Amino acid sequence: ASRLRLCGLCFLLQILTIILFAAFVRYSPESSPSLCSQQLNCSWRNQDLGFRHPRFRDVHLQALLGFGLLVPFLSRYGLGSAAISIFIVAFAIQWAVLVQGLLYFFLNGKVYVGAQSMVSADFCTAAILISTGAVVGRVNPVQMLLLTLLGVTLFSLNEYILLGLMRVSDSGGSLAVHTFGAYFGLMVSRVLHQPHTDKREEQRDGGQQQEVFAVVGTISLWIFWPSFTSATTVRHNAEPWAVLNTYFSLAASTLATFVLSPLLSEESTPQMVQIQDATLAGVAMMGMAGEMLVTPFGALIAGLLAGLIPPLGFRFLTPTLCSRLKTQDMCGVHNIHGLPGILGALLGTLVAALATADAYGGRLELVFPLVAQGSRTATDQALCQLCALPVTLLLATLGGGITGALLKMKGLRSSPD
Amino acid sequence: ASRLRLCGLCFLLQILTIILFAAFVRYSPESSPSLCSQQLNCSWRNQDLGFRHPRFRDVHLQALLGFGLLVPFLSRYGLGSAAISIFIVAFAIQWAVLVQGLLYFFLNGKVYVGAQSMVSADFCTAAILISTGAVVGRVNPVQMLLLTLLGVTLFSLNEYILLGLMRVSDSGGSLAVHTFGAYFGLMVSRVLHQPHTDKREEQRDGGQQQEVFAVVGTISLWIFWPSFTSATTVRHNAEPWAVLNTYFSLAASTLATFVLSPLLSEESTPQMVQIQDATLAGVAMMGMAGEMLVTPFGALIAGLLAGLIPPLGFRFLTPTLCSRLKTQDMCGVHNIHGLPGILGALLGTLVAALATADAYGGRLELVFPLVAQGSRTATDQALCQLCALPVTLLLATLGGGITGALLKMKGLRSSPD
Amino acid sequence: ASRLRLCGLCFLLQILTIILFAAFVRYSPESSPSLCSQQLNCSWRNQDLGFRHPRFRDVHLQALLGFGLLVPFLSRYGLGSAAISIFIVAFAIQWAVLVQGLLYFFLNGKVYVGAQSMVSADFCTAAILISTGAVVGRVNPVQMLLLTLLGVTLFSLNEYILLGLMRVSDSGGSLAVHTFGAYFGLMVSRVLHQPHTDKREEQRDGGQQQEVFAVVGTISLWIFWPSFTSATTVRHNAEPWAVLNTYFSLAASTLATFVLSPLLSEESTPQMVQIQDATLAGVAMMGMAGEMLVTPFGALIAGLLAGLIPPLGFRFLTPTLCSRLKTQDMCGVHNIHGLPGILGALLGTLVAALATADAYGGRLELVFPLVAQGSRTATDQALCQLCALPVTLLLATLGGGITGALLKMKGLRSSPD
Repeated sequence: ASRLRLCGLCFLLQILTIILFAAFVRYSPESSPSLCSQQLNCSWRNQDLGFRHPRFRDVHLQALLGFGLLVPFLSRYGLGSAAISIFIVAFAIQWAVLVQGLLYFFLNGKVYVGAQSMVSADFCTAAILISTGAVVGRVNPVQMLLLTLLGVTLFSLNEYILLGLMRVSDSGGSLAVHTFGAYFGLMVSRVLHQPHTDKREEQRDGGQQQEVFAVVGTISLWIFWPSFTSATTVRHNAEPWAVLNTYFSLAASTLATFVLSPLLSEESTPQMVQIQDATLAGVAMMGMAGEMLVTPFGALIAGLLAGLIPPLGFRFLTPTLCSRLKTQDMCGVHNIHGLPGILGALLGTLVAALATADAYGGRLELVFPLVAQGSRTATDQALCQLCALPVTLLLATLGGGITGALLKMKGLRSSPD
Repeated sequence: ASRLRLCGLCFLLQILTIILFAAFVRYSPESSPSLCSQQLNCSWRNQDLGFRHPRFRDVHLQALLGFGLLVPFLSRYGLGSAAISIFIVAFAIQWAVLVQGLLYFFLNGKVYVGAQSMVSADFCTAAILISTGAVVGRVNPVQMLLLTLLGVTLFSLNEYILLGLMRVSDSGGSLAVHTFGAYFGLMVSRVLHQPHTDKREEQRDGGQQQEVFAVVGTISLWIFWPSFTSATTVRHNAEPWAVLNTYFSLAASTLATFVLSPLLSEESTPQMVQIQDATLAGVAMMGMAGEMLVTPFGALIAGLLAGLIPPLGFRFLTPTLCSRLKTQDMCGVHNIHGLPGILGALLGTLVAALATADAYGGRLELVFPLVAQGSRTATDQALCQLCALPVTLLLATLGGGITGALLKMKGLRSSPD
Repeated sequence: ASRLRLCGLCFLLQILTIILFAAFVRYSPESSPSLCSQQLNCSWRNQDLGFRHPRFRDVHLQALLGFGLLVPFLSRYGLGSAAISIFIVAFAIQWAVLVQGLLYFFLNGKVYVGAQSMVSADFCTAAILISTGAVVGRVNPVQMLLLTLLGVTLFSLNEYILLGLMRVSDSGGSLAVHTFGAYFGLMVSRVLHQPHTDKREEQRDGGQQQEVFAVVGTISLWIFWPSFTSATTVRHNAEPWAVLNTYFSLAASTLATFVLSPLLSEESTPQMVQIQDATLAGVAMMGMAGEMLVTPFGALIAGLLAGLIPPLGFRFLTPTLCSRLKTQDMCGVHNIHGLPGILGALLGTLVAALATADAYGGRLELVFPLVAQGSRTATDQALCQLCALPVTLLLATLGGGITGALLKMKGLRSSPD
């Protein structure tokens, strides 16, 4: 019965998506210049919205970088959850294209999508994968599907408020992806808390295979993530600061693990999983400030701090979270994405407050378009960046609470396998 | 003796290739503008041939995407065949550059190669890898080498007839790569059929490792294959529809696996290998129609259908094929590449028949150059696309029969290891 | 105590790096055009130095290709050394950006870095990874850190002498990366030689896992390395000869393994590790000559020769090296990087001597800028290329000797784990 429910729900949602796509979604006429000049003002998006999606030549690489996240997760989730993760990605991408299209690209009753939509959808998918990290192994596939459905919708809403209304610069998603994803997942986990059954999942077997996935995951993070962080920022004739800052942050956070590891554990070299955690924390930290930092040593310091969070968090915070707040964090997303994301947002606020036209030069227009146009001072922009943090936290916890309550309904509950 | 035969044949073929390269192959003078303007009309290719190879900036990525196919295959072939697969790739690339160069780029007694040749050779290599999927574990390395030699030649001939003479649009190789590769391999397998010895290979150990390769394979397909499908289509200032259509097709075909799996098997979530099969079917389906579909929901429907083929095929078709037609299909290439490829060709025909200048705009010239120039109507083009299917099937089965007969010769037969 | 020493040294070096970055390193003003025109002659670099770093659009891919090397190494190093390898990479990148910046990009008391610096640092990291291949498993992490510190400095010095002063063309690092890395590591290994304790490390368990890493490593080399070889050469409107030559070399060296393997061993197909060795030798061979070869068959012949070196070397040379010269070569870097690198340098010399304006056309300016400008004849250039070989060998062995003597100091010696 449970198997057939998944099958049916999955089929229904796919058919629903196809119908909605057939009714609303069209390819952006921007691609066929002859149409564009006649019917649409094709540049309305870049001018009217606070965030910019350049036309990607290498969309084929960018668009699936959420998968760069998938590999590292396998080292914590275990191989068994690979199928369900890809399932989530496959559905989240379709749904995100639809929901984000309705928010951003709706015009004359149609949603016009393009390479930009795919990249946005991929950011969203990354956030959902982070959320599932908090509850993996404790929910069944049907619940996972509903979590994805609601999570994508709430993520898009939050992103729209941040980027579209508040005009916050958050190109790498410190807030929109990492913080939202982590706290949304944690809140769902809190609501789903069941005192008696949560014991057995705690022991996970590490084993050789986990280590292999951690190696491959760390390497793929180093290769793919810097471009993810800068997906919406790199201009064809500008030095890719966001990429460079992210690299420096990665390097420093990796070293931080080696500094802390001998102090906290018995072994002299950290395990690969810990290095991978530091790498993820390093990129979460650089999400917002990546394109804003004008000096490399800032990225090094930020990365060093970010790298200290996961080892300390796993040692001191996760047990407290579990016993006091009754929130089980299966993969430690609070340490790896939540806290570094918040710190990244605070760093972004600080840097935005210090932004001057002198330091940025022609780049100011790319990073803070409103400041460059004169309609906002740097202090106003910093204030907006700061306000975005409580907004995101509020939406994530509220949304997570509602989602969790829904998943707890009687018909849906069953063992994960 | 068998070992020395491989060594000698390998050495001879490599020396022969070097001699032929020395005699004929030169780098395209297009790269050195000063030469180009004097001696050659460098643009003759794009104008005279039905298919276009844009100059790749990212040739380093595109050119080895056949390897994107290699990884998923390992989950079915097993680790033992990795060496022989890379061996095939190494030889097929050299031979394909030579044969395709003689067909396409022959001028004044020389073959002028460039990044384009490498990409074409890579398409060819992908087809040969598909073919070997039908016979892996049943032929020895010497036979494999001869299969590659003949397969590359026949593939190039077929591709030349389709793209050069009939001017069919098949940018992602639904016909040229997937259909040709599958039926060529199946025919070789049929001819090599030996009633008594074919039993023991049937049980393959699945095991943990297969699952790991399937995970990595599926992810690398998602990352690399969409750009493979669109390797010959993306223009620098056009939205990459082929990429987007392929992504949508992948997502829908993955969901299809989750719909079918609970109905066909005991488990609620499909195995990773099944998801990988659906992914491959999804891209085979989009090979021809990828750049033609003007609405995303078409790609979703096509992907959904493609994803249904492998599970049903493995359940109902493969046993019949094996018992009735005496054709052993070691890796199920018929379900994964053959049938989805044929369906993709039919879809391409349908879309070509419906093509109008209104729907395509400036893109019509890129997708159907002859229709845009007015030398063909859309119906004519659709007819050509349709005729390409029997031509490909004929060449693949005829060629496979001859190749199989050759491989069956007395001197070549020996156990695979 | 040993654990705390690593922790402390690591912390100190990271803080030192941050202070030096804060004092000297700034992002290149080239990226903000408005600043550039006022304060700096932004094009001084390309004009004054013999090597060119184009502005990378795909820096996110190029910059971490050292990791493409990391994966293949794991198949020889074993999983246990993955953490320490990533540790080395994280520190080497920071240190290399600093040291190379001081050598190349120092202006008005500041070092201006950009995407180019990251790519240079990555070349350096690759060389250090090669060096560690000679001593892995025999030195502890603290020694490894010091080896990295000194190795990066010496590498940068050698590269500066070769590219900056002697104006040698060595875009893919046959000399600067492969030869320097191999002989530096071997010399360190020679000095650290201890007669009694070196026995036990010799038996390494091959096992299934090694094979898996070799498969993934070989494939990632094929995908990533050609672009590494050509990182500093590809022009946006020129055919990527360096990439194509490297592909042809890879293909031929792989076939060479299949020719030699049946003659040297019992098995008919070589192991994946051997194929990976041949692949590495093939790219080391093409490092210098990759962008110079104007005919593909030259790359095929060179690759064929390169592919013969590792099997013969492991059979005949490594035992002699170990017993006679007391130099243990843990991963065979002499066969895989050292000898092919030297051969590649000789090939580069030969090709440089034969260079004519006719054969190169407009490309001469890119490959041999001094020859194109008329300030050097082709023979002079070839002489320079040849002289670079003894210079590199001298610096590598001298530097390796000093480094080894330092690592042998009493306080540092301890068991590797």
